[in-house]
Amino acid sequence: MNIIDILANKRDKKKHSKEELEYLVKATLSGEIKDYQISAWLMAAYINGLDLEETTELTKLVAYSGDVLDLSSIKGTKVDKHSSGGVGDKVTLVLAPLLASAGLIVAKISGRGLGHTGGTVDKLEAIPGMRTSLSIDEFKNQLNEIGVSVIGQTQNLTPVDKIFYALRDVTATVDNIPLIVVSILSKKIAAGADIILLDIKFGSGAFMKTLENARNLAKMIVEVAKKLNKSVIVALSDMDQPLGYMIGHSLEVEEAIKTLKGKGPPDLTKICLKYGAILLYQAKKARSLEDAENILKRNINSGKALEKFKEMIIAQDGNPEVINNFDLMPKAEHKIEINSPKAGFITNLDAYKVAQSAKLLGAGRDKKEDEIDLSVGVELKVKKGAKVDKGQVLAILHANNLKYIEKAISEIEDAFSFDTKPPEQLPLVREVIY
Amino acid sequence: MNIIDILANKRDKKKHSKEELEYLVKATLSGEIKDYQISAWLMAAYINGLDLEETTELTKLVAYSGDVLDLSSIKGTKVDKHSSGGVGDKVTLVLAPLLASAGLIVAKISGRGLGHTGGTVDKLEAIPGMRTSLSIDEFKNQLNEIGVSVIGQTQNLTPVDKIFYALRDVTATVDNIPLIVVSILSKKIAAGADIILLDIKFGSGAFMKTLENARNLAKMIVEVAKKLNKSVIVALSDMDQPLGYMIGHSLEVEEAIKTLKGKGPPDLTKICLKYGAILLYQAKKARSLEDAENILKRNINSGKALEKFKEMIIAQDGNPEVINNFDLMPKAEHKIEINSPKAGFITNLDAYKVAQSAKLLGAGRDKKEDEIDLSVGVELKVKKGAKVDKGQVLAILHANNLKYIEKAISEIEDAFSFDTKPPEQLPLVREVIY
Repeated sequence: MNIIDILANKRDKKKHSKEELEYLVKATLSGEIKDYQISAWLMAAYINGLDLEETTELTKLVAYSGDVLDLSSIKGTKVDKHSSGGVGDKVTLVLAPLLASAGLIVAKISGRGLGHTGGTVDKLEAIPGMRTSLSIDEFKNQLNEIGVSVIGQTQNLTPVDKIFYALRDVTATVDNIPLIVVSILSKKIAAGADIILLDIKFGSGAFMKTLENARNLAKMIVEVAKKLNKSVIVALSDMDQPLGYMIGHSLEVEEAIKTLKGKGPPDLTKICLKYGAILLYQAKKARSLEDAENILKRNINSGKALEKFKEMIIAQDGNPEVINNFDLMPKAEHKIEINSPKAGFITNLDAYKVAQSAKLLGAGRDKKEDEIDLSVGVELKVKKGAKVDKGQVLAILHANNLKYIEKAISEIEDAFSFDTKPPEQLPLVREVIY
Repeated sequence: MNIIDILANKRDKKKHSKEELEYLVKATLSGEIKDYQISAWLMAAYINGLDLEETTELTKLVAYSGDVLDLSSIKGTKVDKHSSGGVGDKVTLVLAPLLASAGLIVAKISGRGLGHTGGTVDKLEAIPGMRTSLSIDEFKNQLNEIGVSVIGQTQNLTPVDKIFYALRDVTATVDNIPLIVVSILSKKIAAGADIILLDIKFGSGAFMKTLENARNLAKMIVEVAKKLNKSVIVALSDMDQPLGYMIGHSLEVEEAIKTLKGKGPPDLTKICLKYGAILLYQAKKARSLEDAENILKRNINSGKALEKFKEMIIAQDGNPEVINNFDLMPKAEHKIEINSPKAGFITNLDAYKVAQSAKLLGAGRDKKEDEIDLSVGVELKVKKGAKVDKGQVLAILHANNLKYIEKAISEIEDAFSFDTKPPEQLPLVREVIY
């Protein structure tokens, strides 16, 4: 077995044997296969494809290329929820305590933001004192005690995915369905949950630009997961406009807390209840999806969900006072209002442009090492479908450093489209694939 | 312009613009594009192809990526001959002095052996004292004085080809026609000759395994050369069995000298006369190919060609006595006879296996840095078509280190195939494409 033969096979559109894929993963990890060979393989796999069997095998091999969390010592059904990355996506912040308040174990290893999408770990760090780099023992203890923990990745999970991903990013081999399936699913398998909900975003603010593409990805994920005996549900949700009204770290924690208090924006509340209900029903904690949604609504209204969030903050050394005092989180110095240039209906609110604007204010990073400003971001005042007057406030930029402020303003202005007629409004969660 | 877009275009089977190829070559040279990106591009180009226009543009860009020899100060028609690499291929050693003896300027920059094929520069170094690393001024002076010089590459010719080639070798992207065209032709353009003869070998001992493939390569070379206003002739010759009887460095110089004396093996003599005639006629030094061949024959019979070889040896500080005393070259300690296991006709003599045997004796290298033994090699006593008795000597191995002798013997034994009927014998030079 050698890499030249493996490269030649995929180059010639042949199917890889199990042994070939085993060698590929092993020798990638050991460094025997060089990065220029891995990238040539990624390009060949991108162009000539990996079939269901190859993708399944590779997913398994990459999942077990490093540590795999063993959560079997924790009683109860362990659930995990993962989003393919969106703008203003603070669902995890709401859903994790909400589900834990209903008796599920929410064991969530989250990422940091990169490019135009934010990361849950960064957002949590807007809470003063909050620790996200727990050891695996601390993580498990917390799960046993309060049923929920959201941490950053400190373990050596799926090291081969990290090698693949870094190369895909710089060789135009990112947007390929089998390679995405391997990447997403291997990480989720290594994270050890029993039931996994994947939220695949599509639209201008997502990696998948069309519903069609997102659906194909979802189907393959579900097929591969079945072959690997993993319970995975995929939801396809619209990321043409940001989720909720807040984009930025402190701002999103604030909006998540409001949602846990029952005062969140309709779209965010709805998607959290929908995903929560699916997981609760799937874990057999409710007789129907409707029943499940009612349980979750009750836990919000009773304050049980918010109480669970407080427990989680305390368990991770954060200041729980934040729940009642948002000013404890980093705050931006300047607030700049963006006014509507005309009257009419908002027919489009481009998530990608909103994200670019937030990034220009300092809320995003291009490279892992870049520093981010947790206090800045975009506060939307209206969303798609709203009727506005000329001069009405469309958004408020929360800014500190004003270096790129003009560009940030121009991005946010460009994000809004207007017409005299209201736009068609499609449901946020378009499909759920089991 | 950035490499990600260029990669995405070739990945998606799009045609590269001139500007894209310009950027690719420039940024490869500067190191801005990383090797893992170049290898991903090579794989995409291998799978999705480069058309005639892209190949032409890239050939030109790579040719001019480093130094380009300017031979305009040397009077006369400068010719160059290049082989795609064979076994026992000492044509350059014969052809260079032969053509110079007929008034052409033979400006030849040669390579060293790699893998299973030998290199002219290594072979010349079997002549005691012979210098092959001349400066460009020395090279030009020698061309002006005696009309012939064969040297190794010391200049910075086609650096981008070197980068591409090193990566192709380790990423299964070697045997691709457009990429081979770029590599061969860019080097020849940078070497500055007026008329170029390319000898493309096919068969077991060559990189192109079939005539069909070699023909497709030849056609594209000629087409691209025409677009670049270069006079290039491509000959397709059989490399199923080795050329001549000697494989190894001292051994091949010996056989070349014998050929210059008119006492060489028929196949080698024939191919040298044929290629020489083509170049002489193309340079308008003869009225017809027949006329050209007669001039060359006369120069062999009169000793003029041998005299030119002597001048070349002297000019490059070698010992010209070698011409009359082969013992001045490195000689192997042991001679091991290989006897025929049966009586019959030799129906096949596998060039690749003969080369492997010579390599096991120490005549070849796997990596550029490997040392080679100039004295060892294989001396064939019979070739394809010969009728042999059982026990008759088929070949003699010239060996020093006997570490791999058993493997070398077994390779050479395997190289011969026998039958009761004589094999079909096809002409050595199968096609000439202008």
